[in-house]
Amino acid sequence: MRAIQITEFGGPEVLTVADVPEPVPGPGQVLIDVTKAGINYADTHQAENSYLAASKLPMIPGGEVAGTVGGRRVVALLDDGGGYAEKALAYEPAVYDLPDGVDDSTALGLIVQGATAWLLLRKSVHLEPGESVVVHAAAGGVGTLAVQLAKAWGAGRVIATASSEDKRKLALDLGADVAIDVNTPDLKAALIEANGGKRVDVVLEMTGGTVTDQSLAALGPFGRLAFYGMASRELPSPIQAPSLLKHSTAVIGMWLPHVFRLPGDVMRRAMTELLDLAAEGRLKVVDGGEYALADARLAHEALRSRRTTGKLVLDPRR
Amino acid sequence: MRAIQITEFGGPEVLTVADVPEPVPGPGQVLIDVTKAGINYADTHQAENSYLAASKLPMIPGGEVAGTVGGRRVVALLDDGGGYAEKALAYEPAVYDLPDGVDDSTALGLIVQGATAWLLLRKSVHLEPGESVVVHAAAGGVGTLAVQLAKAWGAGRVIATASSEDKRKLALDLGADVAIDVNTPDLKAALIEANGGKRVDVVLEMTGGTVTDQSLAALGPFGRLAFYGMASRELPSPIQAPSLLKHSTAVIGMWLPHVFRLPGDVMRRAMTELLDLAAEGRLKVVDGGEYALADARLAHEALRSRRTTGKLVLDPRR
Repeated sequence: MRAIQITEFGGPEVLTVADVPEPVPGPGQVLIDVTKAGINYADTHQAENSYLAASKLPMIPGGEVAGTVGGRRVVALLDDGGGYAEKALAYEPAVYDLPDGVDDSTALGLIVQGATAWLLLRKSVHLEPGESVVVHAAAGGVGTLAVQLAKAWGAGRVIATASSEDKRKLALDLGADVAIDVNTPDLKAALIEANGGKRVDVVLEMTGGTVTDQSLAALGPFGRLAFYGMASRELPSPIQAPSLLKHSTAVIGMWLPHVFRLPGDVMRRAMTELLDLAAEGRLKVVDGGEYALADARLAHEALRSRRTTGKLVLDPRR
Repeated sequence: MRAIQITEFGGPEVLTVADVPEPVPGPGQVLIDVTKAGINYADTHQAENSYLAASKLPMIPGGEVAGTVGGRRVVALLDDGGGYAEKALAYEPAVYDLPDGVDDSTALGLIVQGATAWLLLRKSVHLEPGESVVVHAAAGGVGTLAVQLAKAWGAGRVIATASSEDKRKLALDLGADVAIDVNTPDLKAALIEANGGKRVDVVLEMTGGTVTDQSLAALGPFGRLAFYGMASRELPSPIQAPSLLKHSTAVIGMWLPHVFRLPGDVMRRAMTELLDLAAEGRLKVVDGGEYALADARLAHEALRSRRTTGKLVLDPRR
C-alpha cells in the first residue's frame, strides 16, 4: 500500500511516499480502509522527534483516520501512528461509527479537537445553562468547537478571544457573543467588561503565562478555569491554594488521553453526542483544506507556518 | 430578653448574660423565637476580635439559630450575629423550614457544616457514583457529614483520615470504608493503598501544608481536590498549572458564603436535600452537647481546648 514513511527525523522534507506492506491486525484490532487522514500539529513534532513521547523509525505518522471497515463508515484514533496510509490499524474501543451526513473531514475535526472541547465543558467544568464562558484561541481547532458547544448547551454569554481581526470574525460567525483581542493590556478588565461588568463563570485556556493569570483573576464565585495546554510555552504564576478561597474558584488540568483511563467509555459518549450534533447541522468543523498523500509535506509546512485555520486532512488515495 | 452580650473583647470570661431589648425586624427580616443557638469555633474568634471580619461592641455572638416564627419551626443563618439570645433577626432568604423529625441540634449541624459538605460534593467536585472519596478531618463538623453524604450518593470507597483512634472509629461508625492516620509518614502512598492500589478520584481537604501536597499527588485521572480551609495554618506548596496536566487533575477552592452569590438559590436546594435526608434518618449530626445560656463560656472553653466532637448548642431559655 502507499503511505508516508519517515526513515530519518527532520522537517517536512522527510515526509516521502513509499510502498509498504499492509499492516496485519492483532487481537482486538481492526484494519481500516483509510479515506481521509487527519493532520495535527503534533505530527510535525513526531516527524522531527520533538514530541512528548519519543518516535521510532521507520515511522508512518498520523494519529486519526476516517474510512471503512467492511461496510461500516468509521472514524478512529490510532494507538501508535500509521494514519498517513491507505490502510491503518485501530483498536475497536477507539473506533466510532459515522452517521449519514457527517463527512470524513468533519469526523476528523471532532475526534481530537471536538472530544477535547466536549470533555472540557462536560467533564472538567460541568457547564451549567446561563453561565458565561471565555474561550481563548477561539479560532483554533478546540476553540471553534468549544464556542459552538457552549452556545448549543445554553451558555449565557460566550466571550471569544483571538489575536487577529480575522480570527475574531470567525469566532463571531460561529456564535460567540463577543470577541476580544487576547493581547489587550488589561485582559482581566476586558473579560469582565465583555461579560457586562460581571466576573466570568468559566474559562477554557491553553495559552499560558499572563493569559492564565489574568483569566484566573477574572473568575467569579464558583468559577472554573480549565487549563489544557500552554501554547506560549510561558508558565503562569504559581497558584497558592488559599487564594482559590477568595472567590471559590477552581483550576482544572485536562489532557485528552486520560479519558481512556475513566470507567464507562466516556469517549464513546462524547463522540456519539458530537457526531449527532454534526449530523443535525448544529456543529461545524472549519475546513482547513485537503492534501494529496504526496503533498503531506506541504500540509506540514502550512501548519508550521501557523497560517492555517481549520482542520487539514490528507487523502491517501490521491 | 436574655442574651449573651459582650462589652469587651476577650476569652470565654467575657460571655456574660444580660437583659437586653428585643431586636426589631427591618425590611425583609423575620423575628425568630430561638429554641437553640449553634456554637461555632468562629464565635470564639469573634469574642476576642480575631476573626476575618472585625467585630463591633456591644455584641451578641452567634451566627445560626433554630426556633419558631409564628407556628413555623425554622433554622436560619444570621447576617450579623445575635444568635445567643431568646430572639434573633434573620433575612427570609436565609430561613429554612424544618420537617417533622428533625430536631434543633441536627438542623444547626446542617446549616453550615452540612451545607458545606453538600456544596463540596455536589457543586465543587460533582461526585459521580462509584468514585473514591478521601475525607480529611473526617470526625469534624464537615467531615462527619461528608462521609455520610458521599456514601448516600453512591461513592465507591470512602477513605477517612483523622489524627486519633477515637476519631477514626467515629468515621467508620458513620460509614467510611477505611480510616487512616493523617500523620502517617507517606500519606500519598497510604491513600492509594487505602483505595486498593488505585489513585483516588476526590479529596475533601481543609488541613493545608503537606496534607494538601500529598493528597494532590494521590489523585488519579480527572481527580479533584476541594480545598476549603487550612486548619494547620501551613501553606501547601504552590501549584504550577501545567503539573495538573499530568493526570488531568483539579484544585477547587470553596468558602460557603459565596453560595449566596450564585443564581437559583442553591443554598435552599442544599438545605432541602439535607433536611430531607435527616428526616429519613439517613444523615446524622453528631451530638456535642447542650449548654444553658449562662454556661456559654463553658462551651467556648471546651471548643478552644479542641476536646469536643460534634455539634454544640446553647439553650437560651435555660
